[in-house]
Amino acid sequence: MRSSAPEAEFLPTIENAEAKGRVVLVCEHASNAFPARWGDLGLTEAQRQAHIAWDPGALKLAQGLMRRLDAVLIHAPVSRLIYDCNRAPDMAGAMPARSEVHDIPGNSAISPAERLARTEAIYLPWASALHGVIARRIALGLAPAIVTLHSFTPLYFGKPRTVEFGIIHDADPSFAMAIQDAARSKTRLRAEINQPYSAADDVTHTLRVQATPYGLPNAMLELRNDLIATDAACEAMAETLAPVINMGLEEIQRQAKAS
Amino acid sequence: MRSSAPEAEFLPTIENAEAKGRVVLVCEHASNAFPARWGDLGLTEAQRQAHIAWDPGALKLAQGLMRRLDAVLIHAPVSRLIYDCNRAPDMAGAMPARSEVHDIPGNSAISPAERLARTEAIYLPWASALHGVIARRIALGLAPAIVTLHSFTPLYFGKPRTVEFGIIHDADPSFAMAIQDAARSKTRLRAEINQPYSAADDVTHTLRVQATPYGLPNAMLELRNDLIATDAACEAMAETLAPVINMGLEEIQRQAKAS
Repeated sequence: MRSSAPEAEFLPTIENAEAKGRVVLVCEHASNAFPARWGDLGLTEAQRQAHIAWDPGALKLAQGLMRRLDAVLIHAPVSRLIYDCNRAPDMAGAMPARSEVHDIPGNSAISPAERLARTEAIYLPWASALHGVIARRIALGLAPAIVTLHSFTPLYFGKPRTVEFGIIHDADPSFAMAIQDAARSKTRLRAEINQPYSAADDVTHTLRVQATPYGLPNAMLELRNDLIATDAACEAMAETLAPVINMGLEEIQRQAKAS
Repeated sequence: MRSSAPEAEFLPTIENAEAKGRVVLVCEHASNAFPARWGDLGLTEAQRQAHIAWDPGALKLAQGLMRRLDAVLIHAPVSRLIYDCNRAPDMAGAMPARSEVHDIPGNSAISPAERLARTEAIYLPWASALHGVIARRIALGLAPAIVTLHSFTPLYFGKPRTVEFGIIHDADPSFAMAIQDAARSKTRLRAEINQPYSAADDVTHTLRVQATPYGLPNAMLELRNDLIATDAACEAMAETLAPVINMGLEEIQRQAKAS
């Protein structure tokens, strides 16, 4: 159970580390990279490009928000099918044997040793880096607010999804509710709380581990990926959502002062 | 907000890393070391030996339990007065300006930069190492149970404390309650829940950050330090408490199977 050598680690990328804004943007499903160590897990090129491997558009959207909010951004370096950084090591979804209608051959029979190896190579450096970003900002009195960025497929198990903008919360719903209110007043997006998933589906791992224990405002944002399918669409969506997030932040600051 | 150079870090010690048992023992206040980088914080030799600087006996007790339970043990390398690893970086108690009746001159006016420096040197390596111990065991399916070990002074602000064995819980009280039941049936210790402190006093930081988010059984154990004042007393107390912890574990395993 010792640590791997550092060269065996896949480190997340941190952008705009010295940001002045409160928001810490997190993108666990930014990448569809399949490093040689794990190969393609038996997937076709088309599967490795599909939403099961990553959240298309989420990173570009996050980068657009980073610039507009002067936020830090941290994103994961490999496909969620190798290790999903938004899952604990014992969750089925951490190294899923099946995703939507697709079998993942390379994950069909993972030994405890391989589960440990992926945890050490991907999840531990991810968790330490994200915790470091957050704890440093807490130490400096910067009152970080954690926003995770995701995208979801418009068609899931053959069924269309009508929600466009999902806002998901963990134990504390206040920031998510404030963002939904702002989205409804400032945009035409169909914005729903805890859609298309909720904490009951194990999707709030990052919020639960990194934000909730420190009492930090937090929310998980999910965009339907047909709305952020090009770089230009990602930029436009960032332009739409930056004031929504700022309005949500102002609302929870107002609530904090009032209490 | 970049990471310090590794040589500036004060790493925790991990003992019995390959342990077969379920229990992960944690001792945040194991040490009263005052490294040259911070000097003596303006304290006398007597103050640096006193309970304000560390939890006397806690490490020896933890080592006795480690051997009897085949547990992993992780313990902090410096005095809690430099950085208290059981506190978040923004809590007053992380680098306290006062402890019980004692002023801590070296902590009377800590700048944000110094708060960050201590966080980077002590808290971040501590948190990453402990998270690594726990996450590796989760990946291997070892179902870790987290037990933090502390000691408290019999006389606090001049008032005697009658509790001998305090069992403190965070959000999930089940393991703490099972340990109290076991202590009352197997020992003559005056065992009380959430004494002499409770989660409301910010003392469950480790449990809240490292155990609760993963749904792991967890409890904080506090022994009155006059009961573990010598190495022989620590060994005797470990001999008393090892079966108590095992009985508590058996009870929560029984509850988990029944639910």
